[in-house]
Amino acid sequence: MKIERSQSQLVCIQCGARRPLYETTEFRCSVSRCGGLYRVEHDLGFFSKHSIEWWRGHFDSMCIPAEDPRRMSGVWRFAPFIMPSLFSAEMMTLGEGRSPILPVGPHLTAWLGSQNISVHILWEGDGPTGAFKDFGMTVAVSVAKAMGIKAVACASTGDTSAAASAYAARAGLKCFVVLPKGKVTKVQFSQPLLHGARIIEVPGEFDDAMSIVETLALEGRVFLVNSFNPTRIEGHMASVFLATQFFSWEMPDVFVVPIGNGSNSSSIGKGIATLQQLGFATNEPKIIGGQSVAAGPLAESWASSHTAEGDPSGNWLEAYAPWPKNRLGETTASASKIGVPVSYQKVIAAIEKSRGAVFAAPEAELNEAMMLAGADGLPVCPQTGTALYALKEAIARGMIAKGQKVVVVGTAAASKFPDVPVMYGQHLISETPSCDIEEVAAIIGV
Amino acid sequence: MKIERSQSQLVCIQCGARRPLYETTEFRCSVSRCGGLYRVEHDLGFFSKHSIEWWRGHFDSMCIPAEDPRRMSGVWRFAPFIMPSLFSAEMMTLGEGRSPILPVGPHLTAWLGSQNISVHILWEGDGPTGAFKDFGMTVAVSVAKAMGIKAVACASTGDTSAAASAYAARAGLKCFVVLPKGKVTKVQFSQPLLHGARIIEVPGEFDDAMSIVETLALEGRVFLVNSFNPTRIEGHMASVFLATQFFSWEMPDVFVVPIGNGSNSSSIGKGIATLQQLGFATNEPKIIGGQSVAAGPLAESWASSHTAEGDPSGNWLEAYAPWPKNRLGETTASASKIGVPVSYQKVIAAIEKSRGAVFAAPEAELNEAMMLAGADGLPVCPQTGTALYALKEAIARGMIAKGQKVVVVGTAAASKFPDVPVMYGQHLISETPSCDIEEVAAIIGV
Repeated sequence: MKIERSQSQLVCIQCGARRPLYETTEFRCSVSRCGGLYRVEHDLGFFSKHSIEWWRGHFDSMCIPAEDPRRMSGVWRFAPFIMPSLFSAEMMTLGEGRSPILPVGPHLTAWLGSQNISVHILWEGDGPTGAFKDFGMTVAVSVAKAMGIKAVACASTGDTSAAASAYAARAGLKCFVVLPKGKVTKVQFSQPLLHGARIIEVPGEFDDAMSIVETLALEGRVFLVNSFNPTRIEGHMASVFLATQFFSWEMPDVFVVPIGNGSNSSSIGKGIATLQQLGFATNEPKIIGGQSVAAGPLAESWASSHTAEGDPSGNWLEAYAPWPKNRLGETTASASKIGVPVSYQKVIAAIEKSRGAVFAAPEAELNEAMMLAGADGLPVCPQTGTALYALKEAIARGMIAKGQKVVVVGTAAASKFPDVPVMYGQHLISETPSCDIEEVAAIIGV
Repeated sequence: MKIERSQSQLVCIQCGARRPLYETTEFRCSVSRCGGLYRVEHDLGFFSKHSIEWWRGHFDSMCIPAEDPRRMSGVWRFAPFIMPSLFSAEMMTLGEGRSPILPVGPHLTAWLGSQNISVHILWEGDGPTGAFKDFGMTVAVSVAKAMGIKAVACASTGDTSAAASAYAARAGLKCFVVLPKGKVTKVQFSQPLLHGARIIEVPGEFDDAMSIVETLALEGRVFLVNSFNPTRIEGHMASVFLATQFFSWEMPDVFVVPIGNGSNSSSIGKGIATLQQLGFATNEPKIIGGQSVAAGPLAESWASSHTAEGDPSGNWLEAYAPWPKNRLGETTASASKIGVPVSYQKVIAAIEKSRGAVFAAPEAELNEAMMLAGADGLPVCPQTGTALYALKEAIARGMIAKGQKVVVVGTAAASKFPDVPVMYGQHLISETPSCDIEEVAAIIGV
């Protein structure tokens, strides 16, 4: 297939204006000056040169590991869908996206009430930085490098800066990370340092850090890899392709995903649409989103614009209102504690089209979900707990039919969130006064 | 292929006595009462029913993900090599072993002096518990469950208990973890709790905890999944098979591996021998081991029984002496800070056969290696730093020829060891007194 930069365009989601992807360095529509976010649009006409069968065979053959980014990465395996305008030598991979898809076990099944439903977790905590951000960042950094960009920048609560710095290092780009001082964990602070990024600590909150880098980006002074950058979305579409390939190229019936800024749920919508458009699948999977009660603007507005069974009873987009900082509660699902999701329009469009829903998990429920996943051997994070709760709610409301296939996107490794198990697992800890063997044997019961 | 339990036997490495694998619950030779460790031996006669070509095709087809443990796991992909006596429904997988193999970048290349050598890192930090232990534990727990065992036990400095508890949860077995009180990190403590394992804290050191569970195991009161359990070794052979498949079924010329207890380097020796025996490869890869100066009994005895160029000048096994606790120094490579490696006999045999070497890394060098890997985008741990140093030393001594292919086993995720980047990255941190954009811009230089 012929690779041409002009295959990939940016399109403003507000005014529809178009820009060439590889020539655009700021991510608010400057064509009509409407300031809208962009989405990426590819000319995928080349797909018709081969049959669907041929393409499936191609993607299957790319699963066999070898010295080729498309065979090292479960994101770049799907390069023709994700960024067809990039040459394989330009794909900056760290082996992300070979994430496993694992069936839930008896503990989660009982809690979800999913005895007649097939539920799998696509565990994206296996990447180089331990979170799903790797999927999108490999694409954003690869495109930046292909554009001739020399330095990238982001604000972060921790996971974005880890991914940005790792991929920038891989690509040989400089990386500047603006962090709210004292607000990220030691591990999250160590990751950009490991990868040689420059950290700039500012007083204040994440929003202050974000506002600084966004302004510098709009002035064309830094190249942003936060989720304003729409190429990030492209990488996360891989979740849909991975799940579909896993089920012998049948798209699952339901995707369940935690929602923070909303880039991941937008991506799932775009991935589904891509497979439909190209004839790889004809079904219309539901997208179910999970938020926490502490930060649930999309769940709140979904509830006020739909019936309990999930039918529209009003205009969701009109019902939507961001949450001011003082409305946000405390939650262990800290990575999705966002009152003003950047991609809310994309999320609402994608979930509404899918006849899906968004539910907000109470703290006790999202933590319980994480612990029950752990009891099944699955090390998921509290954000994934919100998604599991949303699935439970959707099942209880009869929104998922018997026999359907459900894939829950697990967004990060549990080990990034040790507080929950330490809080809930105290009853599992015993202590012996000495190293006497019989004291230990008595506790074990042998 | 016909699956029979009798295909797999335990053989005492000291007296040669044999026992049926699935009927043996203690892991010191009790046949002759010599107390030797066992190794696993499989009847691999069934391989001859198909050509090598056919088998390669089989293993390649298992790379395409689907609902089958052999297609979810890079360990069970190689089940016919690893545990041919187990049915696929008995393979308790959490998706381990799909680990990426990534070329090193310019920073490591310059430091290693490997401009004319192909160096890749097989990054095993991508598993469910973030360390290579997952490779062996999935096998040990699967075999335990197949034997009808109801509970497993281990002592741990952190990583073993994480893996044991995750796989025990997956298999529906109880898990007891004996930990030295106050000696493991919060994250490592949280992992067994997440997976519902019972933690027993004892006063004292790891060795005290180990001695308690080993005694209980020898008395037949608990089933041990520490590395005395030789089925652990079988899973780690996957490192060799993954690397060989990656290079289009050519075995690399050199494997480099950190050595703690030595189970991983033993496994690599066994994996190489398996491929040679079955005709998959004819070359004889070198095994290079890395230790730290703080804990280097194998490096010390290698040095005193070999010339500087690596030729034997004495008997390594006779030169070997374990290090008492008071000889151990401080090291960031804490996971391999072991003075009395359980598998030292297996390690010495495997490395000597390969005409390899063991080198001990000074602290500054192993930390620098970790930071340079990070600068190349690769999030490796300090133990992998010892392996990288050993490779540098082997290259400097002319032990690796131009054009050879080297695979370094990366044993854990960097995020488990945040101290090194925080220590070495201080010069990368700036702070602004306010949230003024120009202050940040000045630091970035825009």
